[in-house]
Amino acid sequence: ARDIQLAVVAGDGIGTEVVEQGLLVLETALSGSGVGVVTTEFDLGARRWHATGETLTDTDLDAIRTHDAILLGAIGDPTVPSGVLERGLLLKLRFALDHYVNLRPSKLFPGVTGPLANPGEVDFVVVREGTEGPYVGNGGAIRVGTPHEVANEVSVNTAFGVERVVRDAFARAAARPRKKLTLVHKHNVLVHAGHLWRRTVDAVNAEFPDVTVDYLHVDAATIFMVTNPSRFDVIVTDNLFGDILTDLAAAITGGIGLAASANINPDRTAPSMFEPVHGSAPDIAGRGKADPTATVLSVAMLLEHLGLNAQASAVESAVAADLAERGSRVRSTAEVGKDLAARVAG
Amino acid sequence: ARDIQLAVVAGDGIGTEVVEQGLLVLETALSGSGVGVVTTEFDLGARRWHATGETLTDTDLDAIRTHDAILLGAIGDPTVPSGVLERGLLLKLRFALDHYVNLRPSKLFPGVTGPLANPGEVDFVVVREGTEGPYVGNGGAIRVGTPHEVANEVSVNTAFGVERVVRDAFARAAARPRKKLTLVHKHNVLVHAGHLWRRTVDAVNAEFPDVTVDYLHVDAATIFMVTNPSRFDVIVTDNLFGDILTDLAAAITGGIGLAASANINPDRTAPSMFEPVHGSAPDIAGRGKADPTATVLSVAMLLEHLGLNAQASAVESAVAADLAERGSRVRSTAEVGKDLAARVAG
Ligand SMILES: CC(C)[C@H](C(=O)O)[C@@H](O)C(=O)O
Ligand SMILES: CC(C)[C@H](C(=O)O)[C@@H](O)C(=O)O
Repeated sequence: ARDIQLAVVAGDGIGTEVVEQGLLVLETALSGSGVGVVTTEFDLGARRWHATGETLTDTDLDAIRTHDAILLGAIGDPTVPSGVLERGLLLKLRFALDHYVNLRPSKLFPGVTGPLANPGEVDFVVVREGTEGPYVGNGGAIRVGTPHEVANEVSVNTAFGVERVVRDAFARAAARPRKKLTLVHKHNVLVHAGHLWRRTVDAVNAEFPDVTVDYLHVDAATIFMVTNPSRFDVIVTDNLFGDILTDLAAAITGGIGLAASANINPDRTAPSMFEPVHGSAPDIAGRGKADPTATVLSVAMLLEHLGLNAQASAVESAVAADLAERGSRVRSTAEVGKDLAARVAG
Repeated sequence: ARDIQLAVVAGDGIGTEVVEQGLLVLETALSGSGVGVVTTEFDLGARRWHATGETLTDTDLDAIRTHDAILLGAIGDPTVPSGVLERGLLLKLRFALDHYVNLRPSKLFPGVTGPLANPGEVDFVVVREGTEGPYVGNGGAIRVGTPHEVANEVSVNTAFGVERVVRDAFARAAARPRKKLTLVHKHNVLVHAGHLWRRTVDAVNAEFPDVTVDYLHVDAATIFMVTNPSRFDVIVTDNLFGDILTDLAAAITGGIGLAASANINPDRTAPSMFEPVHGSAPDIAGRGKADPTATVLSVAMLLEHLGLNAQASAVESAVAADLAERGSRVRSTAEVGKDLAARVAG
């Protein structure tokens, strides 16, 4: 068993704080397994940009590519113009490494109180497309700053791109007990992209006859998310709708402090990237207040992706046990990390 | 006082059912005021399309233009290809009549139980841009149905279009006790459109120095919608984000059965259009099960738009009183309409 070569991009704000705890739990989970972790830290984010003007160079990218996986904290800082780090670093990683499956599970763990009065059982996963849609950066503007400015954003959707993520979502649905897939789009308005998504889901359904398919417009999906989240099993959707739905999904299952995600390259032509759904949270950064649980759950996804299923389960069980007993106790980032590591070890 | 010339587009599914009750309440509210209602019914929607292939002709549009306002039920039917009626009729009305302010108030009325355990006081309004953004229909596709299909959707945003809706939202915020405006966008990804919206809000803020402005990414906005909806006063946002947020807002304030909306042409160069946020709900259509309250509240917005403020208040008070005593009673569409009309008369 060879060591995991892990690229670590702690990033901005609370990124460093949560990643530290994620690494602690990762190392604890692997101890005694014969598999070690060798980390390479990448200095990417606001500090680097201020110092050098660079977001992610080809050299960075080449170096990252040699790793088995990436653990990312958070990207984005108020001192950097909006979009520079998001587009130039975070999205560039997702696009360059072909992370076309952005996997975001939502589970209401026992002991966790969300904002809903009667949530019922919540356990679904959003398969968010990660390399197309309105995120491609194919927009532009003319006459900027004048009364005649026109600013366009182009959502690009390809049969190639939609089909591969839809097939991945079907496979995930087929492997779950309920075998249910919900396509979320807005095909009554975004007719070209929407119809491509629909036709693709219909076509791929033939390969997965056991999977039940339904469709929701994105606006209606937000309604069900708060009135009947139990109806969801696997959701497949585009990059932007997935962004929106997964923050809402995180909110109803206890908040983004608990929401994990994986940016997966299923073809394994490049390392996949594991990151909490939350951002860099500059308002609480540097104060040991961030909840590292989302990062720790992302570490569980990382372990599973690398085939270390026992270790992945151990981490998820540790989180579940911690959440069950958490109550309203306030702990620092480091304390939560230590407690989770102790459960994994224990 | 001359009569209101009202264009009635009952539309599809439950549209006819709820519009009937809306008209009953409208006529009741006006009785004794000296102002009457003269309605012209427009046969638009699925039936007409099946019979003639037409969605909205120039003749229809010219006839509608001669009216003071439009009351619309719902558009959309499963027997018509997705997008045909939405784009060819509903959105065509909004675009052709320059309904650039799509106004959607959200209020948690006493007596109404939503899905949130602790909603707090909820009373905000979304000013959704109605004539631009991803709704312009500037998409297209090539190689449709082949593995090489590319389907694009273009969001078009102009300084002209953004500025006028932002100014309207500021004016509304300035007139409310809390004087707070939240811009919702996704400027860290949709940088061109997002920066236009941001710059415009900053610029127009100078004209409304009393108004406090903040900003949320759309994903974060959905979180606050379920964890702290009281934080919102006036939200201004683009066409698609507004679509998504207002369904969610409706859900947390008791459901789309209660959510009213107004498609306003503030320059009064064409009639404004009043419609419930909900759709045609084919699953319950024709069974007297639809709640006409959203349509009745839209009628209140219509009355207010026409300067009939006393009548508008009477309708809103009737709804508030009905909701306060509604409990879990089940009434038919017609019963709710009759009860509301009785309260308005009473
Ligand atoms: C930071 C931002 C670019 C990012 C996104 O929109 O994808 C974030 O919101 C997320 O969901 O990971
Ligand atoms: C029916 C559909 C085109 C419409 C929209 O997306 O605007 C509806 O969802 C709404 O919010 O009025």
